[in-house]
Amino acid sequence: MRAYTTYLTFQTERRREYVNITAEVEAALADSGVREGMVLVSAMHITAAIYVNDAEDGLIQDIDEWLDRLAPTRSDYRHHRTGEDNAEAHLKNLLLHHQVIVPVTAGALDLGPWQQIYYAEFDGRRPKRVILKVMGE
Amino acid sequence: MRAYTTYLTFQTERRREYVNITAEVEAALADSGVREGMVLVSAMHITAAIYVNDAEDGLIQDIDEWLDRLAPTRSDYRHHRTGEDNAEAHLKNLLLHHQVIVPVTAGALDLGPWQQIYYAEFDGRRPKRVILKVMGE
Amino acid sequence: MRAYTTYLTFQTERRREYVNITAEVEAALADSGVREGMVLVSAMHITAAIYVNDAEDGLIQDIDEWLDRLAPTRSDYRHHRTGEDNAEAHLKNLLLHHQVIVPVTAGALDLGPWQQIYYAEFDGRRPKRVILKVMGE
Repeated sequence: MRAYTTYLTFQTERRREYVNITAEVEAALADSGVREGMVLVSAMHITAAIYVNDAEDGLIQDIDEWLDRLAPTRSDYRHHRTGEDNAEAHLKNLLLHHQVIVPVTAGALDLGPWQQIYYAEFDGRRPKRVILKVMGE
Repeated sequence: MRAYTTYLTFQTERRREYVNITAEVEAALADSGVREGMVLVSAMHITAAIYVNDAEDGLIQDIDEWLDRLAPTRSDYRHHRTGEDNAEAHLKNLLLHHQVIVPVTAGALDLGPWQQIYYAEFDGRRPKRVILKVMGE
Repeated sequence: MRAYTTYLTFQTERRREYVNITAEVEAALADSGVREGMVLVSAMHITAAIYVNDAEDGLIQDIDEWLDRLAPTRSDYRHHRTGEDNAEAHLKNLLLHHQVIVPVTAGALDLGPWQQIYYAEFDGRRPKRVILKVMGE
């Protein structure tokens, strides 16, 4: 099994932001030379997520509002007693999950017609990393 | 590393439906000849999910009602301005996650006693695909 | 591809409990001899989860209360007609997801600075298993 590892770094302008990283994952796959296997795409922070869904602006706003309804910004989280103010960002990370596995078939990402890979930032404005690990033959 | 890829297609009768696909995953594993590794089971659509849980009818109804409470059908999603009416199906996909990895040990799916693999359809009545990718030796 | 499989068993004192298992995953990796690849960490029960987040006590309490808000204890779940009383534990398992993939680079878990691996028990006080499967070279 061949393994190829690379890292992306994001520093978003806003606290919450959704970045389409499908092209970056495709570039890592091309660099790896792998033709059959998978790419693990995994956030290395606990206040960011990786998900697969549609590249439609309205839907992305719907997702953002929905996440904030289910994991709302509040002042009374216990985590804030440590001086932090981002407990809701941790909960949003847990809700969306921090990683996906993208299958690789015949040298290409084997995604459905509307599947795009997104980095979801919930506590940005500082450098945050994502690992891309291509594994296969 | 050996890789074996196959696809399942579902066309459910109802808009929302939960289909036990454990036997289909076992069949793909048998066809692959892999004895140690994993099976990636991943929905190729953004309004369907894959999950592992119990094959109990009452629980499946509980899951369905719970998903609809947390990601409700509403008319005012921004995504609907595109002419779509399925934003809640996208949110349900994100809540359950679109994929699982099933470990393979000694030629069998290494699942716990009540773990069954489910395809969860949230916007059915048209053909939708799932990729099964067996990887290992 | 090399595959190394081991199992952890938990019997928690309380019904809900959160256990940091990062050291156990590191030990399995050391036993495997794998230097490039991944570790699949997957609960074998349908009322427990695996997640990656911060080892901060206040945050863990926040996570517990948040899970109970989104997947509350109730008497009227249909699953309870079977004599069970743990439908909410199934829903919490689905919300957090039952597995993570930890990347392995240069012989070590390739985690971010605050990423810790947790076993989340939602229906404890009896033996429950987790599979650790290290795959790579």
